[in-house]
This record gives sequence, C-alpha cells and structure tokens, in this order.
Amino acid sequence: MAKPKLRIIPLGGLSEIGKNMMVIEYEGDIIVIDAGLMFPEEEMLGVDLVIPDISYLLERRDKIKGILVTHGHEDHIGALPYVLPQLGVPVYSTKLTNGLISVKLKERKALTGADLRVISPGETVILGRFQVEFFPVCHSIPDATGLIIKTPIGIIVHSGDFKLDHTPVNGAPTDLSRLARLGSEGVLLLLSDSTYAELPGYTPSERVVGEALDRIMAEAPGRVIITTFSSLVSRIQQVIDSAARYERRVFVIGRNMSAIVQMALELGYLHASDGILGRIDEIKRIPHDKIVFVTTGSQGEPTSALVRMANRDHRQVHIVPDDTVAISATPVPGNEALVAKTMDNLLKQGANVVYSAIAPVHVHGHGSQEELKLLLNVVKPKYFVPIHGEYRHLSQHAKLAESIGIPRERIFVMEDGEVLEIETGAAKLAGRVTSSNVYVDGLSVGDIGTVVLRDRKMLSRDGIVVVIIAVNRQTGKLLGRPDIVSRGFVDTREARKMLDESRDLVARVLDRGGDRSTQWSFVNAKVRDTLNKFYYEQTKRRPMVLPFMMKV
Amino acid sequence: MAKPKLRIIPLGGLSEIGKNMMVIEYEGDIIVIDAGLMFPEEEMLGVDLVIPDISYLLERRDKIKGILVTHGHEDHIGALPYVLPQLGVPVYSTKLTNGLISVKLKERKALTGADLRVISPGETVILGRFQVEFFPVCHSIPDATGLIIKTPIGIIVHSGDFKLDHTPVNGAPTDLSRLARLGSEGVLLLLSDSTYAELPGYTPSERVVGEALDRIMAEAPGRVIITTFSSLVSRIQQVIDSAARYERRVFVIGRNMSAIVQMALELGYLHASDGILGRIDEIKRIPHDKIVFVTTGSQGEPTSALVRMANRDHRQVHIVPDDTVAISATPVPGNEALVAKTMDNLLKQGANVVYSAIAPVHVHGHGSQEELKLLLNVVKPKYFVPIHGEYRHLSQHAKLAESIGIPRERIFVMEDGEVLEIETGAAKLAGRVTSSNVYVDGLSVGDIGTVVLRDRKMLSRDGIVVVIIAVNRQTGKLLGRPDIVSRGFVDTREARKMLDESRDLVARVLDRGGDRSTQWSFVNAKVRDTLNKFYYEQTKRRPMVLPFMMKV
Repeated sequence: MAKPKLRIIPLGGLSEIGKNMMVIEYEGDIIVIDAGLMFPEEEMLGVDLVIPDISYLLERRDKIKGILVTHGHEDHIGALPYVLPQLGVPVYSTKLTNGLISVKLKERKALTGADLRVISPGETVILGRFQVEFFPVCHSIPDATGLIIKTPIGIIVHSGDFKLDHTPVNGAPTDLSRLARLGSEGVLLLLSDSTYAELPGYTPSERVVGEALDRIMAEAPGRVIITTFSSLVSRIQQVIDSAARYERRVFVIGRNMSAIVQMALELGYLHASDGILGRIDEIKRIPHDKIVFVTTGSQGEPTSALVRMANRDHRQVHIVPDDTVAISATPVPGNEALVAKTMDNLLKQGANVVYSAIAPVHVHGHGSQEELKLLLNVVKPKYFVPIHGEYRHLSQHAKLAESIGIPRERIFVMEDGEVLEIETGAAKLAGRVTSSNVYVDGLSVGDIGTVVLRDRKMLSRDGIVVVIIAVNRQTGKLLGRPDIVSRGFVDTREARKMLDESRDLVARVLDRGGDRSTQWSFVNAKVRDTLNKFYYEQTKRRPMVLPFMMKV
Repeated sequence: MAKPKLRIIPLGGLSEIGKNMMVIEYEGDIIVIDAGLMFPEEEMLGVDLVIPDISYLLERRDKIKGILVTHGHEDHIGALPYVLPQLGVPVYSTKLTNGLISVKLKERKALTGADLRVISPGETVILGRFQVEFFPVCHSIPDATGLIIKTPIGIIVHSGDFKLDHTPVNGAPTDLSRLARLGSEGVLLLLSDSTYAELPGYTPSERVVGEALDRIMAEAPGRVIITTFSSLVSRIQQVIDSAARYERRVFVIGRNMSAIVQMALELGYLHASDGILGRIDEIKRIPHDKIVFVTTGSQGEPTSALVRMANRDHRQVHIVPDDTVAISATPVPGNEALVAKTMDNLLKQGANVVYSAIAPVHVHGHGSQEELKLLLNVVKPKYFVPIHGEYRHLSQHAKLAESIGIPRERIFVMEDGEVLEIETGAAKLAGRVTSSNVYVDGLSVGDIGTVVLRDRKMLSRDGIVVVIIAVNRQTGKLLGRPDIVSRGFVDTREARKMLDESRDLVARVLDRGGDRSTQWSFVNAKVRDTLNKFYYEQTKRRPMVLPFMMKV
C-alpha cells in the first residue's frame, strides 16, 4: 500500500491576487482555508465578480471537514455566499470575521442553514486528522489570524495576510513567540503571504496614519471627510480617536459602512465614547470645524457617497471650499482612473484633497521583504510555498526564502490547481486539478464562459452588424434586398452610403451563389467573408457580422 | 478700442495627461505648441487613439503662423499626421524631433506637402508678433526643448517636459542660466510641466540607470534582454555603452525600434563603435553571455517582440532559464495588467526579470517638486499656469508655486478649452472655446461620437438580443413567431429554454396589440420594454434589445 500523502492544492490566490482558497488533504480528510472573491479584470467584460472553481471540492464533498477563514476581507470571505450553499460544511473563524461573514451571507440571502462557528485565537479545533489552531496576526482588520495545522506527518503554518506592526491600533501584534517555539520544534511547511514581496524594508506602522489624521483634524479649517474601505475597522477606530482628540464629531455615511460600524461596535471591536458618533440629520446644527464624515468611495465606486459628493449629487453633503478630503486607501489595480477622476472633481469644487502620494494617510496591511524574511527565519520550515500573489510576487518571495538559506529544491512556486504532495522525507509537484475563474454575472454563477466573453470583447471593440436575409419557404428564393442593422460600429447617419453599398454587395454575392444562395452554411460563410473584408477596407474596423436567414 | 490682449488657450494636456496642445494668440497672430496624442482610457471602447479637437484652429487657419514642437514623444507629436493636413502650416522643431516627426508622418502617409523646419537650440524664429527661441531642457529624449516666447506685452516661458539632470546621458542639461538671466529681466508668464508635481524631492539622474544596467550586464549568466520605449533614445545609448563595457553585442529587435535607432544613428544622436550592433541572424554564432537584445514591449503590447517571446511565439528568440529580462520603463496607466502578465510569463519560463520595483532600471523624465520649485524661483514669473497633467497634478503644482511666494491670484489652474487673457497689468480667465477628445478609430477621425461609444459600452456589458419580427406587407399581419438571436448575453445552449420563453412572450404581447401590432413605433417600444423586464428578472442582466421588423 502506498504511504499516505499530504496534498496541498491552491484553488485560488496563486495566479491572480484575490479569490484566495487553499485545500489541504490527508487520506480521507479535507480542510479548506478561505473562500474569497476577486473583482473582474478589464477583459472580463460585464462580469460582476470572480470566485474559485470548486469542482474538485464538489466531487469530494463528504470528505470536507470545514472551511477555516483567516480574516474578514472580501478576498477571503467573498465567495462564501456562492460556495457554502453547495458545500454545506461548517465555517470556522474568529468573532469579528464571523460577524462580517454573517453580514455578507445575509446580504446575498445565504445565511439560512449556514453552520458558522466562532473560534478564539489560541483555541484548537479538531477536523478529522487535522488539529487546527488559530493564532493572531496583525493585518489591516482586527481579529485576523494565521493557522497552525498539525497533521500526522508534521506541522503546517499558514500565515494568513499579515504584517509585523509592533504598535497596531487594535488587535494583537503577530504572535511571533508562539511561532518561534513551533520553529524550534520543527515545522514541515510554511505557506506565507507574498502580496508585498517586492517591497524592500518594513511596512510602516498604522501609527503613522494616526499621526497624519491628527494633523488633518487639527489644521483643517472646515469639515474633514475621510474615505476608506468599510472593512478597515481599525482605520475607522483611528478616525474616531483622532476626532475625539480635536473635539470633532463623527458621522458615518453609507449603508454598508454603517452596518459594519454597528456590528463592530456591538461586538466590541470599535470603541466610541458617548456622543462622538452622530446622526447625519444633526449636522446642520454643528459648526463645520467640528465635523468628520467617514464614508466609502475610496475606489471611486460610482454609487458611493464620496463620488456622489464629488459629482454634486449627494443629498446631504455638498462640497465647499473649506472641506478637506482624505483618501485613506490606495486604489485596487484597475480602479486608478476612477479614483483620479473623483479627486479631480473634488479639487475643482475647491476641496483640499489629501492622499497617500502627498501624506501618509494610508499604510497597507501586508509585510514587506524584511518582515517576510523574519517570519521565514522564525518558523524555519522544511518546505516553503509562497501564497497570495501573482507569479512575480511568489517568485520574489521564493528568492527571499533562498536568500535566508532555504534550499531551492524545497521551495515550490505553485499556480492555482497545482498539487504539492508531501510524504515523510519528500515533497514533489504531482499534477493538476480543475481550477479556473468562475464568473458571477447578475444572478448566474458560472454560465459566463469563454464564448460569451469573447463575443462581448468583439462587440465592445467595433460593434455589430446584423444582416437579415429573407427567403421564400416554398420556392427557396431570396426575397428582396437583405437588410442591415448596426450598433456600435459607425455613425449610421454619416456612414449611410457605405452601409447601403454593403447591402447591395451582399445581394450581388448571394445572387451569384445560384442554388446555394439559400443554404444556411453558404449564406453564413459568404456574408461574413464579404462584409468582413468590405468593412475592413472601408473603415479599418472589424465589427461582428451576424447573418440571419429568415424563411417566410 | 480695446487694448490688445494675449490669449493663452490649452486645447489638450490640461484635463488628461497626453494630447498636449497649447495655443497662444495676440491680435491677428496664433502660434501652436505641440500636437500630441493620448492612448484611449478604459471606457473609450475600441478607440485606437485620442487627439485634441482643433475646431478653434480650423476657424482661424489663416492666422496660424506655425506649430512649435518641444520634443519627439508621442504625446507631443502624435496628432500631427491628423491635424497637419488640415492646417497646412509650418512645423518648427530641433533636428531629432524633426526626424521623429518625419518617421511618424511617413508611417501615416502624411509626409507629402508637410513643411518641416529644423531649428537649433538657441536660435530664434519670428512668427508674426512672436519671437520664439528654443532652449535646451533635459528630458528622457535628446534634443528636447522649452520655449522662450517674446510677445509685445512680455515674455512667456514654456518649459516643455523637463527635469534637472546634471549628469544626463546625452543632450544638454536644462539651460538654467539662460532662464535666470530672463528671470532677472522679468518674465510675464511661466507655463511649466506638472506631470510629477506630486513627487517630493528630486528625480534621480539617468546615471543610476546606467549603473543598474552595468550590474546586469556584468552578472547575467546568459543573454540580457532590455525592453524600453523606442523613443527613449538615450536609454538605448546607455544599453549600447554598457554592453560595450562588458563585451556584449547589441541586437535591436522590432521594426519601429530599428527605424528609430537607424535614424538616430544617422543624425548623430546615437553612437555605437564598430561591431557593437549586430544583425539578428548572427546570434547563432555568439555565446549567450555576449548577447544583448533591445526590444519594445515594455507596455505589454500584444504584438511586440517581448510579448511574443513571453508567449513562446517569437520566431528567433526563445526564452531559456539563463536569460535576464530588464523592463526599463514603467507601465503607462492602464497597461499595468498587460505588463504584469508579460512578466509572469517570462518568469514561468525561468527567466530572471528585473523591473523598477526591484532595481533602478528606469527613471522618469519629469522634474519632481524641488525641481519645479527651482524653476519657478529662477524664472520668477508674474503669472503662472501649470501645464501637462491631470487636475490634481496642476493643483499640486499651483500649491508649490504658492509656497515659494507667487500670490494665489496670479496662478491659474486651467482646464482644456479655458481662455486666459493677459493685458498689461492684468490677467483673467475669460470663457471657453470648443475643446474635447477626438477619437481616431481605424481610418476615421472624429466620427466616433457618444452614441457609438455608448452602444459599445452597453454591448460590452451584457451583449445584444436581436428580435426579428416578420410582417406580411399586404395583410399587415404577423408571420409566425418572432425570431431571437443573441450574442454576449448568455450561454445560448444553457439558456435555450429562457430564450424560447422570451420568443413566446413577444408573440403574446404583439398579439394583444391588435392593429398596432405591426406599427413600428408600437412594436419597437413594446418589445424592448417586455424583454428588458423579462431578461432582467431572469438574469439580472441588461442586454441591448434590438427589435427589427421585416415586411415580406
């Protein structure tokens, strides 16, 4: 009989950033770490969001002991509303993470029947042959954790998303001494966050943001408007603390932001002394230099409160020249243009806009190179797999591991779907499982395939030309001249003559076809070829040509 | 009679970055500075490039004395093939710039009849009431200039694109002493480059890039592949120099890159000792550690040599694990994902990839805050207009000007199309002229309007559904069930039932319409309303619904 093997299978998060999901398997037992979403890239036209393909898990549903969630950001919990109803397994996470998961499942009407279990940091849960301990890490959200997973052949450490902030706002710093003890006992495998593996040095402490906010609150002549991610609970705490120091009141704007603040207050992850937080209808009675707004919109989302303010389209808040807006976040790749447009519109209305290029109003939540090396040195793993990043981040992280003395042959730069097999004394890559992007578009999950996306891409570039050809059902003869309708191709008034010529051209070409002129395969190919060529010559554009034959 | 006024009108470059064009007017005379293009933003679907709207100039064609071009980058010369044939005025520029303009005009078949005139730095040209002197500035291309424009009411200084590199690769450093003399005589107006107004400190010298390249040439175990913009002539010189020091030969790959290198060699802007440059067919006989390739592809352009190599699709060069690729450029906003994908593909084939996040293989060509302040202090202008940037860059530059003592009321943060009027002793914004983006798509310039773009956007999100309704021309009766064809909306096999239901639905709705059921306005509105509602309920998507009625 073959020796039992430990199998490590990333289903997401190692080919693009986001939609994190890691599968760990030993004999009959499977555990899943995180279930995140990713926002679509530019070429995924019309797609709302992207989640991992869980075919591999669906085929082994009875083996899955649970999903372990390291923290409450979208790229770690966002796929749960879609995958949980299909898998029906328990979800383990710390208290705040659990709160955010509940909010998310409720929003998508997937809360009923979900088996959510709260675990405290330091607590161990037994899942089949795995013993899993959640340990605290410092990240840009409280209650973030990494995992210590004891398996029959050794210990796995999963870092979650982490940095080594020694003066965090709330939440504990990363528990290095626990990891050091483990390191001296011997760790089989480290899976560690690579998001910022390109950045030299150390990531600055959240404290520098607190200082920048203090300066803004002190110096702003009027209202202060701070925008950030709604899940950045510790940033919101910093705003509340700083506002209190400068005797300003804080008004939370936006439905999602308010829901999360409410939940975090109730669970004790946000603290606000009496009277600091206010209701928006109170602002009329308060002088401008006593007001702070906290709002979403840091990504330039068109429906967010900040973007509405920037476009003079917000019901309650109109920008005036004494306002100071602080963008306490960096744009997610792809959102740069939206954010820039929002800033320009705020500036044009006279607001002072502060953003990370000109003041430290944001620091990110991931360790830089020295922190990553420190973790590697403390944990001293036998094998190392860099996780959470695009290929170049993972490669860079692998180089860092090599630089501190981990032999190259024990480092595995993996891609989504690859399988790493570890048995006592050996590890190797062993094939692939199904893994790809599953697109969520409107109500449906997964029906958007390459054909639909390819069509959208083609339509988006040069539009469409529909050619309608009527044929007499009895005689099989063409009826009149074909009709042509176009959208997104040319200005139809200016190009009327050209479009008209193309109708004549189709008519002539089909005429010459004789008997075949009413056979669908002939018509389809001939019309496409003729018009593709004609339109390209005339316009250097390539619209989608869609012939349609109608028998009447 | 009204006192004659100097009018300053930016037609491009002050609302977005790129498509630079500035108009200066005094009584009957107009001069134009630069005529650049911009690459389309994400929402400009299918558009190839964007140029300024020159309606204002076309209405005053007889007044235009010439176009002055500050340097040979696309965002300063790229619109010339489109606007020059319409304007038919002389173009003034320095020798290398003129060479690049000729290459560009020839490429677009617009060279014939163009009146191109070469000016040396320091030389003055008289254009109506304007006397214009080109002065050398340091930028990431040789022969870059700024302009000193003497007008009847004072001197205007236009910085061009500049930085203050004291150890440039070739080309002279920015001529500060000339500007200082002017400053002490009195400058009416400074127009100065704002591209990097957000960056504190000084921009590093090109020399640091030379050092990084030296290290790569010395340490790379095999071939070195360096990718950059083909117009970065001084970067190419650095590569040649560094290759010579380490006894490597240089092979230029790509048609456009080769054409520019050839032209720059001929004009004396590139220097290569005998035998350094080689032809690609020689590489088989040369050991890998003696080879350097220079190629385009730094923006991840799909047809570039580098991207073909990354995709194992290049005829002559196949990536092997000892190769070192240096990306000596930063992605233009919007190209980040393409560049990242290219790097990932190169890494997966085992190449070592060096890029600006991990080594100083690129510095940009624009001054940072201290350089901008220095120029302001040296020129000491009465009025200041920040140019070349988005609104937030211009705002930031305005703040820098205020910080060195220029009164706020003498600083004008303008947008494209705004008019600044200056007369002796006073300046004010005075209205707007026509200015917008003109889209070039395929052969046509300007026919892509908001309707076509809106259609493409709609098509790109949720595709199209064409509904074909046949009506008997004599009886006016509906013939059979309407047909439906869709593209980019849903997977047509999986959604067959839903699409079929929608046909029945249309048939029923039209049936109920009675007499009106064959009137186009009724059919059009009814079919759209019905299907928009039905499809949204079924899918939460909103495809474009295009009804077509056919009389047979």
